[in-house]
Amino acid sequence: MDESVWVILVIEDDEAIQMLAEDALADAGFEPAVAPSGEEALTLLMGMKSNYRALVTDIRLRGKIDGWEVAQRAREIDPEFPIVYVSGASAADWPSRGVPNSVMLAKPFAPAQLVTAVSNLLNGTSAT
Amino acid sequence: MDESVWVILVIEDDEAIQMLAEDALADAGFEPAVAPSGEEALTLLMGMKSNYRALVTDIRLRGKIDGWEVAQRAREIDPEFPIVYVSGASAADWPSRGVPNSVMLAKPFAPAQLVTAVSNLLNGTSAT
Amino acid sequence: MDESVWVILVIEDDEAIQMLAEDALADAGFEPAVAPSGEEALTLLMGMKSNYRALVTDIRLRGKIDGWEVAQRAREIDPEFPIVYVSGASAADWPSRGVPNSVMLAKPFAPAQLVTAVSNLLNGTSAT
Amino acid sequence: MDESVWVILVIEDDEAIQMLAEDALADAGFEPAVAPSGEEALTLLMGMKSNYRALVTDIRLRGKIDGWEVAQRAREIDPEFPIVYVSGASAADWPSRGVPNSVMLAKPFAPAQLVTAVSNLLNGTSAT
Amino acid sequence: MDESVWVILVIEDDEAIQMLAEDALADAGFEPAVAPSGEEALTLLMGMKSNYRALVTDIRLRGKIDGWEVAQRAREIDPEFPIVYVSGASAADWPSRGVPNSVMLAKPFAPAQLVTAVSNLLNGTSAT
Amino acid sequence: MDESVWVILVIEDDEAIQMLAEDALADAGFEPAVAPSGEEALTLLMGMKSNYRALVTDIRLRGKIDGWEVAQRAREIDPEFPIVYVSGASAADWPSRGVPNSVMLAKPFAPAQLVTAVSNLLNGTSAT
Repeated sequence: MDESVWVILVIEDDEAIQMLAEDALADAGFEPAVAPSGEEALTLLMGMKSNYRALVTDIRLRGKIDGWEVAQRAREIDPEFPIVYVSGASAADWPSRGVPNSVMLAKPFAPAQLVTAVSNLLNGTSAT
Repeated sequence: MDESVWVILVIEDDEAIQMLAEDALADAGFEPAVAPSGEEALTLLMGMKSNYRALVTDIRLRGKIDGWEVAQRAREIDPEFPIVYVSGASAADWPSRGVPNSVMLAKPFAPAQLVTAVSNLLNGTSAT
Repeated sequence: MDESVWVILVIEDDEAIQMLAEDALADAGFEPAVAPSGEEALTLLMGMKSNYRALVTDIRLRGKIDGWEVAQRAREIDPEFPIVYVSGASAADWPSRGVPNSVMLAKPFAPAQLVTAVSNLLNGTSAT
Repeated sequence: MDESVWVILVIEDDEAIQMLAEDALADAGFEPAVAPSGEEALTLLMGMKSNYRALVTDIRLRGKIDGWEVAQRAREIDPEFPIVYVSGASAADWPSRGVPNSVMLAKPFAPAQLVTAVSNLLNGTSAT
Repeated sequence: MDESVWVILVIEDDEAIQMLAEDALADAGFEPAVAPSGEEALTLLMGMKSNYRALVTDIRLRGKIDGWEVAQRAREIDPEFPIVYVSGASAADWPSRGVPNSVMLAKPFAPAQLVTAVSNLLNGTSAT
Repeated sequence: MDESVWVILVIEDDEAIQMLAEDALADAGFEPAVAPSGEEALTLLMGMKSNYRALVTDIRLRGKIDGWEVAQRAREIDPEFPIVYVSGASAADWPSRGVPNSVMLAKPFAPAQLVTAVSNLLNGTSAT
């Protein structure tokens, strides 16, 4: 099997959350890949989209574009691309800034919440 | 009962769709109110929000703001405000531009689809 | 077809709501039957349950038992019995007093909301 | 608007149910079209699929193919084609013979159940 | 991150189930806290509710109040509090005694079922 | 607790997928049992159905019956039996060949996707 088909792209500055996400996804059998900024994430998604299965993104990012915009662009590339937002203060903005069929995980969250969110979106089962 | 509590705000230029929406909502027991532009809709929502129960909006609107922005603003005012988008060409942009827990009705649609969408959102049952 | 199989039992004191519910259900093709109290509703449900397809109940009822208890008893008789609660002040108690897979309609509601709620429950599609 | 885009194809021998379905769909703003057999329904779906928005089919049909097969074929033509099965005795076979994201309406059903089922499927909201 | 925000309150007498639940939740990154009785669980929930994210409760408890009542009280404190019931014999009473948007796990269950149920409820995705 | 109540029946030829599934299910606390063919799986399901909680099946199987047929037969034995299909090329046939309330996992998939799919189906939460 081509492992790369399972790559989950993670955009996160907070090292603690980044490690938590990487470990949780790897333990679950996914292959996490970290992008340091939204700009680089979009370059990766546009360049070799088929290798990425889902996006896990923080809202506040270094660089000019935030997580809301990265998700919106990712959905323009693939209308069904699974999106999991991770945030603290910005969680309250999800109802107005999030995209349909996405999940918002308010920090702090448990690794299992991230794994379940990604799995449900990939399995095509309920998101909100 | 205060009928005004059921008012559904409709933003639509297309007269055929506007009449279809008004008739469908009125027949269903809702009280439709039409706003000629997004700007006026937002003024109404901010001024007396509690009288409006849901928003039905076309995407392309006269004036400077489109349906995507009206919906986003409405959700900033009320994070759970029911949103039904109505559109032809723009329906394909819903996965990237729409808000969570909203419904997109691609034109043409039957009156029952609009009534069912609004009712489900108001009843707190499934939206996508 | 045996029309009686579609009978929807309605427990409601408020005459305006009772008429709204009866008319809405009749127009939708259901056969509404009104019970004046929870006690009588339970007698009907136990006596000839198979003729009733769903329960629409107000919370505050004349007599000793309220709508929460009627619904609970109805579910003891039939674990999948569709329940729609209708209430004003008591709507906020639904998360703690309601049964699973039921719908709470806060007064005032539009006829279409009641019809959609009953239809979704009977069709086995999403309730909350 | 091109009315034909709303055509709902109905396959039903039982005249009472056929009339109920046609009236319910027409009142809801859909345009019902009746096919006398599964064979003819498939010819219509394959010939001018884009004009049909959903299929409402009885299970037992005159001719050689039954409703289960018509639905399966319709999904081969369009993987997301909305399917509503209507049946009496065969309703119990839905969990083993039905297709994903379809709805089974056991006879007798109220017109509103059919309209809500079709609307939910077209709106992309919950089916089972 | 404040670990305490993830605390999942577990009310369980059966040592085997208690250990299974604690291990499963801990492995998933949650912080389980065990309450020996419903009375003590309610004291904890009322005293420092904000530290508890969800409740996992057996139905039959030592003391005067059972799991049904603990869940109902927890929902009175927080209308959206995630509830997972765990039971053997009492599982059949969930449709009449459970609260909306809760999950019933019939014993025996696998650890992953508990983790998935808690995660889905916390993520705001589908419960029944 | 009787572990056997948790047995998940897995039908898979591909050794890599079989091991992945067995390990994932075992780590999640389920007890996987592998059937070499659909015929043997059905014999097991009919003989001691109560010991099996769910079916995970590949589509292309050695022997005369494929995964679609095994699932259909399993649902005839138990209308609510949880089904997870696993496939590569055949994933596109799920909308026409799958049963209601089942999940299709397209290969390659991560272990967590399988565990989440099985857990959701067993918990009675959303499937498609």
